[in-house]
Amino acid sequence: MTPSEFRQQVRRGDFRRPTAGYCGEFAQANLVVLPKAHADDFLRFCTFNPKPCPLLGVGEPGQWQVPSLGRDVDIRTDIPRYYVYRDGQVAEELDSLETIWQKDFVTFAIGCSFSFEYMLAQAGVPLRHIEEERNVSMYRTNMANVAAGPFGGNLVVSMRPMRGADAIRAVQITSRFPAVHGAPVHIGDPREIGIADLQAPDYGDPVTVKPNELPVFWACGVTPQEALRAARLPIAITHKPGHMLMTDIPNSRLAVF
Amino acid sequence: MTPSEFRQQVRRGDFRRPTAGYCGEFAQANLVVLPKAHADDFLRFCTFNPKPCPLLGVGEPGQWQVPSLGRDVDIRTDIPRYYVYRDGQVAEELDSLETIWQKDFVTFAIGCSFSFEYMLAQAGVPLRHIEEERNVSMYRTNMANVAAGPFGGNLVVSMRPMRGADAIRAVQITSRFPAVHGAPVHIGDPREIGIADLQAPDYGDPVTVKPNELPVFWACGVTPQEALRAARLPIAITHKPGHMLMTDIPNSRLAVF
Repeated sequence: MTPSEFRQQVRRGDFRRPTAGYCGEFAQANLVVLPKAHADDFLRFCTFNPKPCPLLGVGEPGQWQVPSLGRDVDIRTDIPRYYVYRDGQVAEELDSLETIWQKDFVTFAIGCSFSFEYMLAQAGVPLRHIEEERNVSMYRTNMANVAAGPFGGNLVVSMRPMRGADAIRAVQITSRFPAVHGAPVHIGDPREIGIADLQAPDYGDPVTVKPNELPVFWACGVTPQEALRAARLPIAITHKPGHMLMTDIPNSRLAVF
Repeated sequence: MTPSEFRQQVRRGDFRRPTAGYCGEFAQANLVVLPKAHADDFLRFCTFNPKPCPLLGVGEPGQWQVPSLGRDVDIRTDIPRYYVYRDGQVAEELDSLETIWQKDFVTFAIGCSFSFEYMLAQAGVPLRHIEEERNVSMYRTNMANVAAGPFGGNLVVSMRPMRGADAIRAVQITSRFPAVHGAPVHIGDPREIGIADLQAPDYGDPVTVKPNELPVFWACGVTPQEALRAARLPIAITHKPGHMLMTDIPNSRLAVF
């Protein structure tokens, strides 16, 4: 199935599930939609914090097409499930934005760890949460984001336990992909970045960390989601967690070297 | 002082000390000189084990000039101090090879960690053994080299303790320089590679490892020295440890990306 065919399924209402594992060669994107009045601050926030918020695409105000993500993309209909936030709370879950689309809406598509996990798997680096069929473990850290307007807060990270040689390989591989979070931000003792207990993640599931493994931490796309909620905007829209936008961008094309 | 001027000092007998800290922008090389009868096996050994034995240059049989290392290099006179091995034992220390040079001698110049340490320092990554004015800690591991002819043995590594974020940066930086040992081979628990006690190195000095630091291990040029000794050749020549060949190769030119 091509990404375009996948989006057609979503658009027809035939796919309303998490998108993990589909069209693995292609980048999936986190979605943020904001009124123009807040979009400029959010763009600055992403620019200042490129590791948690790497931008794969930004729409023109009012336009639901973002050609850089895929020629036929319709942001209003091509995501399996949407969250509508009002004043920082999830007010509605929707299957489509067609009825609530505003002429001042600006779309942000943010790179996702599925892309670098695909590259790690291709290179033979084992991923524990996939072996254990769980969601990746995610944690709030004590590392402050660079604030922009109402957007701030702390970095959220995902963690993958690895043996030393695999951790080195993972740094090399993910360094090539800054558009999907890039290199890790930390390796080793979780307390160094304000994480008290690896077995108690703030998001996702705990996974087994073996005695001969190091936890390796990457900046996570939950960071802008948390910043968005804390900003308590009158309206903001995201994908429902796990229900991402499938793009036409091959992961391999995101390599910078 | 240019590398050529430095070599002139050595050639005149005015410099007989360790070369660390001189001409920092330029690569220094480990020296191995062997009769042609063993040189082919040694070349295969280096080819099979490029992380401990990255070749910066190989001479033609009998020639003491290696133009790729520097136009005026004379391998017989430009190293501050030589070890002559006979049957695997240091039989003599010499200031010059002029009296013992053989028509079948083949020169190998092997990249050295001074080059990547220069790059790490330029990038602001602290190096503990330099802060503490000690030699880097080196250890025998349980990782077997790929054998070739009489050359085999286990990998020897150097260790530099670092905080997580610096370890990530160090992987990125040293990955760019495969000609000077390249990326680390291990991060974290030393027992994973057969090292029982970080404070008891097999070569060099112990250094402080702080609780919030990870030991980061690189393949080390002592590996081919050990393999050479164990091969018990009738004759083999190396530099005296620390007394390296200064080349005209800028470290920055060794970057592969």
